[in-house]
Amino acid sequence: MSFVDVIAKKRDGRALLREDIEGFVTGVTAAEIPDYQAAALLMAIVIRGMSDQETAWLTEAMVRSGDRVDLSDIPGVKVGKHSTGGVGDKVSLVLAPLAAACGVVVPKMSGRGLGHTGGTLDKLESIPGYRTDLTIDQFKDVLRRVGTSIIGPTAALAPADRRLYALRDVTATVSSVPLIAASVMSKKLAEGGDALVLDVKCGRGAFMTSPADARELARRLVAIGAHGGLRTEALVTAMDSPLGRAVGNAVEIVECLETLKGRGPADLVTLAVTLAARMLVLGGRAGEADAEAGARRALASGAALDKMRALIDAHGGDSRVVDDYTRLPQATRRSAVPAPAAGFVEAIHADLVGRASMALGAGRRRIDDPIDRGAGVLVLKKPGEPVAAGETVLELLFNDDRGLAQASALAREAIQVADAPPALPPLVLGRVA
Amino acid sequence: MSFVDVIAKKRDGRALLREDIEGFVTGVTAAEIPDYQAAALLMAIVIRGMSDQETAWLTEAMVRSGDRVDLSDIPGVKVGKHSTGGVGDKVSLVLAPLAAACGVVVPKMSGRGLGHTGGTLDKLESIPGYRTDLTIDQFKDVLRRVGTSIIGPTAALAPADRRLYALRDVTATVSSVPLIAASVMSKKLAEGGDALVLDVKCGRGAFMTSPADARELARRLVAIGAHGGLRTEALVTAMDSPLGRAVGNAVEIVECLETLKGRGPADLVTLAVTLAARMLVLGGRAGEADAEAGARRALASGAALDKMRALIDAHGGDSRVVDDYTRLPQATRRSAVPAPAAGFVEAIHADLVGRASMALGAGRRRIDDPIDRGAGVLVLKKPGEPVAAGETVLELLFNDDRGLAQASALAREAIQVADAPPALPPLVLGRVA
Repeated sequence: MSFVDVIAKKRDGRALLREDIEGFVTGVTAAEIPDYQAAALLMAIVIRGMSDQETAWLTEAMVRSGDRVDLSDIPGVKVGKHSTGGVGDKVSLVLAPLAAACGVVVPKMSGRGLGHTGGTLDKLESIPGYRTDLTIDQFKDVLRRVGTSIIGPTAALAPADRRLYALRDVTATVSSVPLIAASVMSKKLAEGGDALVLDVKCGRGAFMTSPADARELARRLVAIGAHGGLRTEALVTAMDSPLGRAVGNAVEIVECLETLKGRGPADLVTLAVTLAARMLVLGGRAGEADAEAGARRALASGAALDKMRALIDAHGGDSRVVDDYTRLPQATRRSAVPAPAAGFVEAIHADLVGRASMALGAGRRRIDDPIDRGAGVLVLKKPGEPVAAGETVLELLFNDDRGLAQASALAREAIQVADAPPALPPLVLGRVA
Repeated sequence: MSFVDVIAKKRDGRALLREDIEGFVTGVTAAEIPDYQAAALLMAIVIRGMSDQETAWLTEAMVRSGDRVDLSDIPGVKVGKHSTGGVGDKVSLVLAPLAAACGVVVPKMSGRGLGHTGGTLDKLESIPGYRTDLTIDQFKDVLRRVGTSIIGPTAALAPADRRLYALRDVTATVSSVPLIAASVMSKKLAEGGDALVLDVKCGRGAFMTSPADARELARRLVAIGAHGGLRTEALVTAMDSPLGRAVGNAVEIVECLETLKGRGPADLVTLAVTLAARMLVLGGRAGEADAEAGARRALASGAALDKMRALIDAHGGDSRVVDDYTRLPQATRRSAVPAPAAGFVEAIHADLVGRASMALGAGRRRIDDPIDRGAGVLVLKKPGEPVAAGETVLELLFNDDRGLAQASALAREAIQVADAPPALPPLVLGRVA
């Protein structure tokens, strides 16, 4: 069957065969299928959808397009974690040392930020000297010594996903649950862990804005994990307002360190502990009943903070930042965004805060834009908190004021104040296992 | 709005604005929009569809992507004709001289054959010396002197259509009523006529296989014509079996000449006279009541045959072919395809006969394949005619036997014989004005 016939099949809403999908992925990887044919098929997939079986085959083929990390010679149960991306979502940076402190091995390949959501790599690279470009051997060595390592994606892992993602980005074919699921899981399967905990974000600041879509994505991700022999669980969590009080890069590192010192904001602590507990259960390090308590103990005892220090050291970073935040990139200027009226903060729209942070230089519009690791936004008043008229709700941190006017407008628009205290939705909206 | 946002709009099933469509067409013409983005939008259009308004804007933009022929300085009403393509569809070659003999000016730009359907240009080029590559000035000169001229498409007319068609061909985005309608009508509007009669083919040998789809295409074509100020009518006609008894190139020229001499097969004569009558009415040369009679008279009197001779002469062709068919390319070998049983021919599947003819060398799979103008298929027994077992139903004409086995198998499969005379559907299935 010619590739045009494969495109026509999906165009007409019919299911693709395993060989169709494998031919697509190997053809794209080898650059034998021209971009215009790949784009036509991607659009047909976005509109017509793919079954769980087709999605599993796609994921499998993308994993096979490159190498797969072999972690079998590292003792312990390896449990990965992945978030679909949010604003102020620094959970991995608390969770990885926390779960490692509880005896789970946490291998993690993270991505860079794009658009209004930040990336774990960009935040980590705020720490002077921290190297995210370790070889697989160095990665495994850190995992053995520290119990966790966080690096960037290597070019050898799921190269088909990289090529397809670049094409999807410029052809309006990103928004597809099966394509997103296959992209995420191909990388996670290639990472070589034994189990995986997923944080599927849902709300204004997330890719999935409706709970139904987020649950469907969670269900797909878990199904692909099961198909690929990876024990996978997903939590669906709220992303309507930024997580914690810091949005940016260095400011998020500070908030993580504060959290590891027991002074974290309630939502970040809750989410980190909840996810850590799932990792402990999947990793066989705790039972359902005592997992959360175990995680809280590792936070309170300073064991997780010690792991963070060891993680930074092992990656060549300056771990003195743990005790001296002035060693991190700073913002030289600040601008207050006041409450428009007295009352209670009803909402801090995460997407707008993310865009404000990007306008200040903390994020990137295109993958090769430079970023300012000192810039960002602080959330001084979270949803539910009372405010006086004119009281500062958001604080903009910046070094370059080119984006200030835009950021201020976005930040103002992000703030909703009401007369009465709002009903706040739960942080964890559901679990798929 | 970025072009990715335009793609996303159609992906989500929303209507495009005039400026979106114009940006698409000018971007494609100037090669400023990359093929992968154009392919993604085309696939979204194929699946989500386009309104009449969007289709009219697309057509308009494609017309404006190139030149428009100005025929205003040629006296008389100029009435074009276009067929959506069938097997043995040589109607234009009878109709153009016939309508011209009745006083209508018939400017015609024809295409080449592709796949199982033949092309008027390929048939005309069977005539030694006939030039299809006239300049627009030469074309107009022939129209003035003869009343009709049939040439190939010029590169300056609707270049966007050519670029889009090439991309659609390799991305499974051909099968879309609005895209087909815009493609046909952009070329017809650029041709500069005053009115247009369309022959929308319907059945196994046509692009539209169901009457509902064919009617919808006819409706779209007529609507675009009206929107563009071109008086347009469409007949929906049957294309289940080949039209006439000849399929190929030189053999179809012979059949046309026989028809112009009053010895044509009934279906071809009926269709040519019916379409000619519509052209006379649209061109103001006859009333509804006497148009068909006028066309039949021009056929019987030899006036149409004289026009054919003049047309060939004016294009540099050897008009002695009119009286000496041996001057046309010949097939040196023949192979009979017999009836599988005694009875009545129930069907001669046009698509399979077209593919058999292509296998013998008379058609092309790809646009730059060479063709054998002597090869083809003769239909000795038409649907409804009685046959004895083993009697020849189809005759394969060829010079090169490389495709003979395939052609024979297709031809055998094309023949359906029944015990009783079949109920034959009407030739003209409907009219849209």
